[in-house]
Amino acid sequence: MADETLFALLHMEIVSHVQKSAGQDEEDQGKHIRVLEGMGFRVGQGLIEKLTKDSLSSFKDELEVVKFVCKEFWTIVFKKQIDNLRTNHQGTYVLQDNRFLLLTQISCSKQYLEEAPKFLAYTCGLIKGALSNMGVSCTVSAEVVIMPACKFQVVISRT
Amino acid sequence: MADETLFALLHMEIVSHVQKSAGQDEEDQGKHIRVLEGMGFRVGQGLIEKLTKDSLSSFKDELEVVKFVCKEFWTIVFKKQIDNLRTNHQGTYVLQDNRFLLLTQISCSKQYLEEAPKFLAYTCGLIKGALSNMGVSCTVSAEVVIMPACKFQVVISRT
Repeated sequence: MADETLFALLHMEIVSHVQKSAGQDEEDQGKHIRVLEGMGFRVGQGLIEKLTKDSLSSFKDELEVVKFVCKEFWTIVFKKQIDNLRTNHQGTYVLQDNRFLLLTQISCSKQYLEEAPKFLAYTCGLIKGALSNMGVSCTVSAEVVIMPACKFQVVISRT
Repeated sequence: MADETLFALLHMEIVSHVQKSAGQDEEDQGKHIRVLEGMGFRVGQGLIEKLTKDSLSSFKDELEVVKFVCKEFWTIVFKKQIDNLRTNHQGTYVLQDNRFLLLTQISCSKQYLEEAPKFLAYTCGLIKGALSNMGVSCTVSAEVVIMPACKFQVVISRT
């Protein structure tokens, strides 16, 4: 219980500090989002490295890699698994968390819906970093369904 | 294993971001340390609130409060207890962690000893916030013994 609180509290402090230090410029509007994503990305990379280091797990395809993130990775970070995973089998995956930890701490009302992106940016980076370290390059975006439910859309980059 | 990695990685990102955003001014020398302490303080307060909320624990004296931080609180954050607690019974406590998580990630050599304060500031704040929320007002400073061992000195403020 307190484990997830530690992460949630730390995350709140990060969001608040990054926003403050990004300044209020028009130009800087998206800066704090990018900074948060970058921090998440590096943490996601480091964490997946640790997670897969001792295991002999090999993943037979992209879907298995995404499933690993939905189960093992999500459990380490958020103390629960992703509730629902959908894919169009063409490189788009939608991960739904019905009770997303970093939103439960804020509010379950509509009032803060506009504020939501800054609370999701870090996690988008986390997912992207984790997948990237497993050889899956992608873009990740997030959308709040109804507080505190949240969807992360992963679109695999084909090169 | 990966639990503590998450915290350690997050912490590294915070330290690096706060330092970058504090700038390089002479005046600002101590600023990033204060910012990190402040973040730790608030997280410490929130965490101890969660930790003590469901328990009926009452502490008979200051020493018991400090012991609670050394055991329960330290375990939640660092996945181990403080190794050694000393006191002069006059309001000074020295908490020693022989393998301090946030230093193990950096280096076990002397090389980074100068850099150590910025990796300890957040934890000084954590301790101060935790104790403050249990009614014990204090100042906290830290000292690296031999990497990665670390001592936190708590001096109770008598008012």
